[in-house]
Amino acid sequence: MSRNLVGNLIICQSGGPTPVINSSLAGVIDEALRHDEIEGVYGALNGILGILNRSIIDLKKEDPSVISGLRNTPSAALGSSRYKFKDEDIEKVLKVFNEYNIRYFLINGGNDSMDTGDRIFKFAQERNYNLRVIGIPKTVDNDLPHTDHCPGYGSIGRWLAIATMDSGKDTEGIYTADPIKIIETMGRDTGWVVATTSLAKQTEVDPPHLIYFPEISFSFEKFLKDVQMIYHDLGYAVIVVGEGLRGENGSILVESKRAIDTDSFGHRQPGGVGQYLVDVIAENLKIKARCDKPGTIQRSSILCASATDLEEAYLVGKMAVRFSIEGRSGYMVTIERIDSPQYEIEIGLVELEKVANKVRELPLEFINKDHNFVTPDFIKYFTPLLGGPLPKYVKLKKYSVS
Amino acid sequence: MSRNLVGNLIICQSGGPTPVINSSLAGVIDEALRHDEIEGVYGALNGILGILNRSIIDLKKEDPSVISGLRNTPSAALGSSRYKFKDEDIEKVLKVFNEYNIRYFLINGGNDSMDTGDRIFKFAQERNYNLRVIGIPKTVDNDLPHTDHCPGYGSIGRWLAIATMDSGKDTEGIYTADPIKIIETMGRDTGWVVATTSLAKQTEVDPPHLIYFPEISFSFEKFLKDVQMIYHDLGYAVIVVGEGLRGENGSILVESKRAIDTDSFGHRQPGGVGQYLVDVIAENLKIKARCDKPGTIQRSSILCASATDLEEAYLVGKMAVRFSIEGRSGYMVTIERIDSPQYEIEIGLVELEKVANKVRELPLEFINKDHNFVTPDFIKYFTPLLGGPLPKYVKLKKYSVS
Repeated sequence: MSRNLVGNLIICQSGGPTPVINSSLAGVIDEALRHDEIEGVYGALNGILGILNRSIIDLKKEDPSVISGLRNTPSAALGSSRYKFKDEDIEKVLKVFNEYNIRYFLINGGNDSMDTGDRIFKFAQERNYNLRVIGIPKTVDNDLPHTDHCPGYGSIGRWLAIATMDSGKDTEGIYTADPIKIIETMGRDTGWVVATTSLAKQTEVDPPHLIYFPEISFSFEKFLKDVQMIYHDLGYAVIVVGEGLRGENGSILVESKRAIDTDSFGHRQPGGVGQYLVDVIAENLKIKARCDKPGTIQRSSILCASATDLEEAYLVGKMAVRFSIEGRSGYMVTIERIDSPQYEIEIGLVELEKVANKVRELPLEFINKDHNFVTPDFIKYFTPLLGGPLPKYVKLKKYSVS
Repeated sequence: MSRNLVGNLIICQSGGPTPVINSSLAGVIDEALRHDEIEGVYGALNGILGILNRSIIDLKKEDPSVISGLRNTPSAALGSSRYKFKDEDIEKVLKVFNEYNIRYFLINGGNDSMDTGDRIFKFAQERNYNLRVIGIPKTVDNDLPHTDHCPGYGSIGRWLAIATMDSGKDTEGIYTADPIKIIETMGRDTGWVVATTSLAKQTEVDPPHLIYFPEISFSFEKFLKDVQMIYHDLGYAVIVVGEGLRGENGSILVESKRAIDTDSFGHRQPGGVGQYLVDVIAENLKIKARCDKPGTIQRSSILCASATDLEEAYLVGKMAVRFSIEGRSGYMVTIERIDSPQYEIEIGLVELEKVANKVRELPLEFINKDHNFVTPDFIKYFTPLLGGPLPKYVKLKKYSVS
């Protein structure tokens, strides 16, 4: 490995924003400033587009209070993108890198971004351009393989656990008028996100009562039976569904048919399965339901962000720089959970090509046998990622007047 | 006024839950325990239904830690209802009051509840049943007349201001892929709720860029022109709409047609105007939009509750008991803002019949001339109700690499 590669560093943020992607950016900047080999610390605006368009900013000129403030600022401060990186773009990237003497390229994103990073890494090798490429994981979807979890996931989970407690309390309070609540969460392809709402349940009767996952073919018949059973027992029901629920043919139950709602990767925007199921319940069970669909609010709250997630996002940013300084290239930083009584992690690396375009589904051992809730193993997996206890609410004991 | 009326007190919670209705309950209990005239402190389960069904609990038996914990527990701990109180029910209420020796009746709710309270108050007078009735205001909708504002309103406003900052940051970060965001807020009849999202805007270019109010007939043509102008200037737009937007004929633009979605007062459930406008933008402007509809989550968060609101809700609960002990009856507690440089309030009273079934709309001086944002007067009105500063987020200055 060639050490002491002197030149400039560029970072780009990619894909859907999270509450902690800017923490990774702060980690990158703080660490980069500690190494003399890194001369300029640059940011690309709007992901890879910023490189292609030469929209490149000098992060060293930013006020230190702005850099530290990034750790409490959600979304993507550099701007992000969902640009589908084309083969003909690679040459241009290398041209721009050469112009700006970029020797360190960090890409903070999901599996599409790791593919972009991998292709740039391989092309630079082919052309003998001395470049170190490190991917920094980021996705609320938690669907990257070879890492215990992804920065962003703990925070969306904490937000959803609290929101499900709150929205569940709401339905518990007004069930005589609005007995069924459906909460629709993100998660187009996997059930990692929707699963986190299970943390809201603290006693047997607490919401959520039912959770449905994109990994399991959705059966209307079973759904209606499940809902009716809970409603019969409790007088109300709180149900959580992932936006990407699939029908028996494997295609998304409800999705937009508009061309503009298909992104550059060919993914279609899910079209509101929660509201659809409100209608299904109304028509079949004649019970009033309503739907909460918090949308992007769930992935952009600092107030409900997980302290663990904020810390780890910063750390993976720092470690990406350290690994690249040590001469590593073509890898994504990973978080490995150590088998110990307390939650502990180690930072590792995995080849970008092993992550590129791969999707890790929620393992079946995290879904219960009835396919309508998580298992205790999932609760054990996710609890440390919450980053602290959830709010404590009281319940009246309700002693009858004798 | 007859003082020293000895007997039992009963409280019921009514209408949509809020983060602070249980604070009012705690205020009632804490104050009631201080007065010897009040023997039993009872709660009716699920609003007025609890009285009709004799589902009555003894609040004195609850653990003190549960009572204090109510101040940090959202929704309605006693259970609420939307039952349309019928004339034939009044006699039964009085019968139950007589059985349980109820002499103090507190009803915590909105304009429908104040009507219920008023009718019971008048009927008891007619029958010479010695009863003191006090209404405690509660509604996130802030649409009760004769009070500066209603407990619950500050908290939904704080939640929405923060959520709009967060969701706005999200769109600012990913505008290259998802340029238009629509946030749908509560507010079936008035624009008080949707107006609070304006607090998220801290500089000229910050979201939200456009706000639409149920008080103003919605014009598709003007809407599309407004959106296109913002999009042209900034490359993205964040738009907030109240769920109860009205068309030019005065009826709700998008509402459910199902019988079960019409409540006992004849109000129909709004049917998702935000998602509808996503479609309008897609079809007319060919720009991709997405909608966040947080639903009941916006009215049930303690974490984002306004400290001012939590305090005031507790205070109006206490004051309701004090006024009733002093012999007042047939009134609702009000919050009056004192004209002073700092925010200060006084607690007052207004006759229940002046509030019963009345709706206070957002005054036109709080809506700008273009009918697509609030005025500075609204910001001045709402700022103290936020109960503290909003989160501070940073922005990069984005110095070009020379």
